[in-house]
Amino acid sequence: MNFYVMTLFPEMIESGMHTSITGRAMAKGLLSLTTVNIRDFSTRGDGRIDDYPYGGGAGMVMQAEPVYRAYEHVVNCIGHRPRLVYLTPQGSVFHQQMAKEFAREEDLVFLCGHYEGIDERVLDEIATDYVSIGDYVLTGGELPSMVMMDAIARMVPGVLSNQESGETETFSGNLLEYPQYSRPELWHDSAVPPVLLSGHHGNVDRWRRDQALYRTLKNRPDLLPGVELDKKDRKFLRELADTAPEPYSVVEEEKEFLRKLLAKHDKA
Amino acid sequence: MNFYVMTLFPEMIESGMHTSITGRAMAKGLLSLTTVNIRDFSTRGDGRIDDYPYGGGAGMVMQAEPVYRAYEHVVNCIGHRPRLVYLTPQGSVFHQQMAKEFAREEDLVFLCGHYEGIDERVLDEIATDYVSIGDYVLTGGELPSMVMMDAIARMVPGVLSNQESGETETFSGNLLEYPQYSRPELWHDSAVPPVLLSGHHGNVDRWRRDQALYRTLKNRPDLLPGVELDKKDRKFLRELADTAPEPYSVVEEEKEFLRKLLAKHDKA
Repeated sequence: MNFYVMTLFPEMIESGMHTSITGRAMAKGLLSLTTVNIRDFSTRGDGRIDDYPYGGGAGMVMQAEPVYRAYEHVVNCIGHRPRLVYLTPQGSVFHQQMAKEFAREEDLVFLCGHYEGIDERVLDEIATDYVSIGDYVLTGGELPSMVMMDAIARMVPGVLSNQESGETETFSGNLLEYPQYSRPELWHDSAVPPVLLSGHHGNVDRWRRDQALYRTLKNRPDLLPGVELDKKDRKFLRELADTAPEPYSVVEEEKEFLRKLLAKHDKA
Repeated sequence: MNFYVMTLFPEMIESGMHTSITGRAMAKGLLSLTTVNIRDFSTRGDGRIDDYPYGGGAGMVMQAEPVYRAYEHVVNCIGHRPRLVYLTPQGSVFHQQMAKEFAREEDLVFLCGHYEGIDERVLDEIATDYVSIGDYVLTGGELPSMVMMDAIARMVPGVLSNQESGETETFSGNLLEYPQYSRPELWHDSAVPPVLLSGHHGNVDRWRRDQALYRTLKNRPDLLPGVELDKKDRKFLRELADTAPEPYSVVEEEKEFLRKLLAKHDKA
C-alpha cells in the first residue's frame, strides 16, 4: 500500500512514520510513504501558499491552486486519481472499521490543512473523504494523518508479525482489553491473579473474557450493545447485575443498564 | 506548562513536537518537553523491558519495574507526584473540554504503552488518568500523546498568537466550521460566494453562522443538541426544516430531526 501525504511539514511525517511497526513494514516493502511539500507548488514569487480569507476574520487560508497542483503532481506520478482524505474536524469520525476499509486501497493520499483551513473550492474538486480523528482541535492535519496511517497500516496483510495480534485487539469485538501481567509474580506486594498461573487455558480464557466485559461495562458501556454475547458471557453479566461478587464492584445504575441489555438479548 | 513523555521512542516525540505551534511555544518558554526513555530503566542485563504475559497469549508485556522507575525519575526531577496519563483504548475518549482541563496543570506526564500493554500493577500504582484518542487501534501511545499535547498546548494562555483563534474554532461552540475562501475570486470557474465580497460584516457573520449550522446538521447532527441557538439560528433551521431554499439540500430525515430539535427549544 502506498501513502502520499500533502503537507507543509514533510519532515514531521517522515520521522514519525519511520519508527516501529510502520517503519518495519516500509523496510519490508509492504508500505511506502511519499511526502509532498505543498510549499513547492506555490504560484507566487514569495513562495507563500496562504492568503487572507474573503469576508475577513482571524488567521490565514491555504489557497486553492498550490494544493491543486500538489495533488496533480501525485496523480501524474501514479497514473490515476486516488482517494484523497482531507483531515478536518468537519469530517466523519475515524474508527476501526474505516481503517479496515481504507487498508484495501492501493494508493491513498492525505491532505493536511493548516492555518484557518483550505479554500473550499479545491476541496470540492479533489477531496473524496473528510475525516476527523476525534472531537478536539489540533494545529494541523499532520498528527491525524499519522494516526490514520498507523491504524490503516496495521490492517494491511503482512504488516503485523503475528496476524492474531490485529484480531484479538480492542474493538475487533467491541470489547476493551483484559489486564496483562508479566514477571515477577509478586511486585510491590501485589500478586498476579492466581488463575493466570494455573495453566488451565479454559479458565484463563474465561477470566480474561470476564475482565474484558467488566472493563467495558465500567469504562465504555456504550460499546456493550455492539458485542456478541454467548451464553457464558450472559451468565457473567447476570451475576454482575444481581450480586456483583468480589472483586467486582457495580453500582445500581450499571446493574439497571445490564438488566435492560440482557432483557433485549433474551427477547432476540 | 511542562510535558514529560515516558516512551520507548523518544526521538519520535521530539521531532514531532518541535514543529509548528508547539515548537514555537517551546522556543518562547511557554511549554517544555522532556522525554524519558523507559529502556534506560531496565532492570535486566540485556536491557529489555518486556516479558511474556502470565496466562499465555500473543505478544509481550511491558514490565512493571522499569515503568515505575522511569516515573520515579520524573517525580524526583520535579519534586512532586504529577498527574500521569496512560494512553490506552481502555480509557475515556479525549475531547476538547478535557484538553482545557489538562491545560491547567503545571506538569503532566504521558505514559506510552507498546506491545500487548503494560503490567496492570504499575498502572494501578502510578496512573491517574486513562485516556483514548478514539475508537481505533494504534501501534503505541506515542502518536496519541502527541495529539493530546498538541490539543492541550493550544489551550495554554499565550501559545496561540491570536487568542481569538482558539475561541472561534470548531467545538468551542459545538458547531463545525464554516467554509473558507481566499484569492483569487474566480478559481477553476468557481466563484467566491458574493456575500463574502460585500463588505457587510453583519451579513458575512450571518452567512458563516448559517453555513456552520448547515454543515453540523449534514455531518455531525449529534453535536446540534449541544449548541446554543439564538432567535436567528432557529429561524434559519426552521427554514431548512420547511423549504430548505437553494443552495441547501435537506432530506426528510434531517427535517424531522430539526423539527424535534426546534420543538424542544420552543418548550424551553
